[in-house]
Amino acid sequence: MVNEFDLIARYFSRPVPSHLLGVGDDCALVPLDAGQQMAVSTDLLVEGRHFLADVDPYSLGLKALAVNLSDLAAMGAQPLACVLGLALPTVDPRWLVAFANGFYAQADAAQCPLVGGDTTRGMSGVVISVTVFGQVDPQKALRRSAARLGDDIWVTGSLGAADIALQLLQHALPSNPALLASTRAALERPEPPLQFAQSLAGVARAALDISDGLLQDLGHILAASHCGAELNYEALPVHPALRSLPPAVQEAAVLGGGDVYQLCFTADASKRETILALAHLAGVEAARIGCITEGSGAIVKRADGRAVTVPRAGFDHFS
Amino acid sequence: MVNEFDLIARYFSRPVPSHLLGVGDDCALVPLDAGQQMAVSTDLLVEGRHFLADVDPYSLGLKALAVNLSDLAAMGAQPLACVLGLALPTVDPRWLVAFANGFYAQADAAQCPLVGGDTTRGMSGVVISVTVFGQVDPQKALRRSAARLGDDIWVTGSLGAADIALQLLQHALPSNPALLASTRAALERPEPPLQFAQSLAGVARAALDISDGLLQDLGHILAASHCGAELNYEALPVHPALRSLPPAVQEAAVLGGGDVYQLCFTADASKRETILALAHLAGVEAARIGCITEGSGAIVKRADGRAVTVPRAGFDHFS
Repeated sequence: MVNEFDLIARYFSRPVPSHLLGVGDDCALVPLDAGQQMAVSTDLLVEGRHFLADVDPYSLGLKALAVNLSDLAAMGAQPLACVLGLALPTVDPRWLVAFANGFYAQADAAQCPLVGGDTTRGMSGVVISVTVFGQVDPQKALRRSAARLGDDIWVTGSLGAADIALQLLQHALPSNPALLASTRAALERPEPPLQFAQSLAGVARAALDISDGLLQDLGHILAASHCGAELNYEALPVHPALRSLPPAVQEAAVLGGGDVYQLCFTADASKRETILALAHLAGVEAARIGCITEGSGAIVKRADGRAVTVPRAGFDHFS
Repeated sequence: MVNEFDLIARYFSRPVPSHLLGVGDDCALVPLDAGQQMAVSTDLLVEGRHFLADVDPYSLGLKALAVNLSDLAAMGAQPLACVLGLALPTVDPRWLVAFANGFYAQADAAQCPLVGGDTTRGMSGVVISVTVFGQVDPQKALRRSAARLGDDIWVTGSLGAADIALQLLQHALPSNPALLASTRAALERPEPPLQFAQSLAGVARAALDISDGLLQDLGHILAASHCGAELNYEALPVHPALRSLPPAVQEAAVLGGGDVYQLCFTADASKRETILALAHLAGVEAARIGCITEGSGAIVKRADGRAVTVPRAGFDHFS
């Protein structure tokens, strides 16, 4: 008989680094460096809502951790450890092996060991809870409220591909196997710029990760910092696979599409060369897309001065 | 329209202490005292499995946090903060208000502020994920592996009531409203001995909280510490409401019943007076129920020397 303890032991008990106390006691124990504060973020992922039942379990394991690491990155924090809660309607060893492999691959890549968790039989559908812990110098943490008038606005990576892949999988766009092939990795295997984000602590001002759409998420910075923004549409790093799509579809995906897990941040204009050098060092694309203004809310302009109107808001889990 | 952000803001955004960064950024930030390590524990609670759909939401909120605080207690750690993930099939404001009130009541009582979370629409049934963080001096942490030959074995509070209440609610015992009335609080509003447990750090050796049943959980200490145990049945703190039940029903509930969230710990015999004084100070009952022996596994004896055989194991979430 497979029981809860066997399960945990079998799939999620790889050795943890010797300076941590991991799975197998009431709590995990994790040391912090002197002068650092603990940064913590948590996400709940529900089958049928955040992922489809037939999603590749390796990608799912990878992404479940990646989206949380993305929150640490957006704070400029260094990952320390993570815990995983998993509610499963059935015990499928092949699914579990693949999920665990994906989760551990991401944990290894980010040096963020799994140190504890809880596995239980759920009533229907897989539910995944991930909590990540990091550390950051509180003086250097990238807070949403730190943007200042005149700051440059930057974004990493490219925009729009994950949203297009999701629309294709949900048949909201006409079937297009070539387009799905070139966008699917952005949706299923996001690569938040973890190293680069850490190097921005003390360099950039405000930051967040784009999960619900560039405009909606930037709006959180603007609200917390009591300011507005002007973005230059032509400066936005549109994913190359989107170039064949109608402009309106591109604009919606680039400005409103979620699941990006890239960084949007602001910084003083004096930091431009530093930021580009850090991005080059980390192998990350960083694009300067606009600036912080007075007022509130964001406007997006084309080079000819026309404003871009955005047809839909970002993803809302309760809409 | 109620959306995700409104929900979080409305029900789970009470002010957090000013030395913490709470809800509203990518991560919460929590400082640790010098020389302390972070202790972390996480639990996933699924409707229909860990609680019934019609459970009082105030009690549910209270218990969801209490069971995690119980894990911190079992490590001797001081609570610092918690995060909450909540998947809800529908948005019921009355349910949410009551749940949040219960959760906050427990958070306030334990000085463990809610600093972050994630709320989402679930597909079916409520799923609750709670992760708690505490701090503990790693030299004084109460590890499962620390029991030594000859140690006293102690347990706090009383045993058996939660299990009897659960059996009554599940109609596994004949209806008995008076018995349910006197045992239900133990099941729905557990009171882990948080203050007492912290005071045991550096005094006791091994400890854990009883969630799956005394014998099963003690078994984890014995396995991790490579030793055995002998318990005196008459020394066990049987909940007074159980005295009218047949001996076999009592024994099963006391030795095998879960959902206790009291502490089982071991300590050197030289610490007896200290432990009783600390228990008195904290207003907690502490009973010395046996001792650590050579060998492996636990035996339970009556005063006349007869061994008590245990008819069933503790609760297994995957059985």
